[in-house]
Amino acid sequence: MNKFSIAIHGGAGTILKSAMTDELELAYRKGLQSALDAGYAVLEKGASSLEAVKQATIVLEDNILFNAGRGSVFTNKGLHEMDASIMNGFDLSAGAVAGVTKVRNPVELAYKVMTNSSHVLLCGEGADEFAREQNIKEEEGEYFFSQFRYNQWLDIRESGEYTLDHSDTKENGEKKFGTVGAVACDINGNIAAATSTGGMTNKKYGRAGDSPLIGCGTYANNKTCAISATGHGELFIKAVAAYDVSCLIEYKGLSLQEAMNIVVNDKLVKINGEGGMIGVDAKGNMALLFNCEGMYRGWKSSNGTDEVAIYR
Amino acid sequence: MNKFSIAIHGGAGTILKSAMTDELELAYRKGLQSALDAGYAVLEKGASSLEAVKQATIVLEDNILFNAGRGSVFTNKGLHEMDASIMNGFDLSAGAVAGVTKVRNPVELAYKVMTNSSHVLLCGEGADEFAREQNIKEEEGEYFFSQFRYNQWLDIRESGEYTLDHSDTKENGEKKFGTVGAVACDINGNIAAATSTGGMTNKKYGRAGDSPLIGCGTYANNKTCAISATGHGELFIKAVAAYDVSCLIEYKGLSLQEAMNIVVNDKLVKINGEGGMIGVDAKGNMALLFNCEGMYRGWKSSNGTDEVAIYR
Repeated sequence: MNKFSIAIHGGAGTILKSAMTDELELAYRKGLQSALDAGYAVLEKGASSLEAVKQATIVLEDNILFNAGRGSVFTNKGLHEMDASIMNGFDLSAGAVAGVTKVRNPVELAYKVMTNSSHVLLCGEGADEFAREQNIKEEEGEYFFSQFRYNQWLDIRESGEYTLDHSDTKENGEKKFGTVGAVACDINGNIAAATSTGGMTNKKYGRAGDSPLIGCGTYANNKTCAISATGHGELFIKAVAAYDVSCLIEYKGLSLQEAMNIVVNDKLVKINGEGGMIGVDAKGNMALLFNCEGMYRGWKSSNGTDEVAIYR
Repeated sequence: MNKFSIAIHGGAGTILKSAMTDELELAYRKGLQSALDAGYAVLEKGASSLEAVKQATIVLEDNILFNAGRGSVFTNKGLHEMDASIMNGFDLSAGAVAGVTKVRNPVELAYKVMTNSSHVLLCGEGADEFAREQNIKEEEGEYFFSQFRYNQWLDIRESGEYTLDHSDTKENGEKKFGTVGAVACDINGNIAAATSTGGMTNKKYGRAGDSPLIGCGTYANNKTCAISATGHGELFIKAVAAYDVSCLIEYKGLSLQEAMNIVVNDKLVKINGEGGMIGVDAKGNMALLFNCEGMYRGWKSSNGTDEVAIYR
């Protein structure tokens, strides 16, 4: 039996302990732990890494604290446009959606694109239409409402600016790249990755970041690694960040940790690509790295490891 | 002075000489030559590879024969949804649009995303909105109309099927991946790539292929290569095909030709990823490879090379 393991993230950035209350920190930790446990439970009963990353991501999407699914930030029009992707390292099958507006769990829709269509990426209204045909659960505006995010949006809506994240920069100097994701390796040595996000507060023009893009925010290949990224999406796209880790493993013979370290702490840093990523290989080894102050994260393995963390 | 060169493509696939009239073949060749000449003229006067690939792609978009811009195929709703991307190898700057419906030259909009926004990828209605703010030229339905493509669409619209391309499979057994693109190296050794497409006939659900995706259908980096791909988009996405060529050069020390040969004739073939790609490196070397019967293509260089071709 292969060592099985799962790692999750809930975004990265300038996460300052000084700006965090004990209550809020506890809520984040509880949210991370429950997602981690949900994914791990799937692995523990012998099911696939693909199912594990989907279930862990759904728990994060359902948590109002994280910028994905229910907790998605407001766009410039006061709506929510969500992106997600999922990839199976066993056969490179993949699915992704960009700019869906009503889907409760975008990662579930990405999964349906992978399994029930011959496509990889569906965008905008067309993706919402596919969701309805697939009987994917939709929600109305109030489901996605939180006073916290609404206030963030009110702060910047008139400025024409957008924030890279789901934080209130005015108040406390925080800067977060709000994304959630999971990677896992199951008892059969199959690996998978999933990523989901509400994108940038006050975003316009149907902007998509790296989260729905295979090779950029999400990638999985049993031969190399499964990766889910969180950070300044445009720069992760230019770096083709997730696949770059895979190539460093495949072509240079590096370990997951070595390859991810080069991409996160050297290549991305050189282009100001702030953020981080989580990864797993087919032996169940995990890596969680970020080049900023903090990353909401957790990792759990059949060897007994079970941790959640926020700061460095 | 660096050797300067440009290569273009107008799609790949099962292009059968038996199904081609002399007149049509001549029209394709003329279309390719004029795009090649337009891009080469830019390089010859010492301007950038970025401008050259944009101009060459615009000429192909304006030609009704190719599935991009004016010649874009019909979607399931009888509309046109176009995708394009452009990348500058000098600084990795990039822009892309997916699912724009009225823009005359999607590659020009992708260029504006790169130069006039802080984003890389804009999707759907939001991208059209950005186009209007940037005063990008739009066209109404009749501009995009051709009896040929309309007939293709009528043939399959009720079936729920889509075709991968802009060909009339019923009539002549052709199967084409309709995309256009260009790569170039300028006198300063800067390289760039652009890709544009109307996607699949009768496509639904806001499907996007590899053309608007940096790393998949388009990639450029002075250190390695500039690539524009054409083929079965979903499989080029799973292969992260364009960036894979770059990684084989960067991490394995292969030449452009060697790296592209591995991706096109081995890695893509193994996953049934039919299609091809064109590439250039910062020394002005070019490669044009495809794993199917033909690829509309042309290449021209300051060393005197000047060719267009369709079949193997």
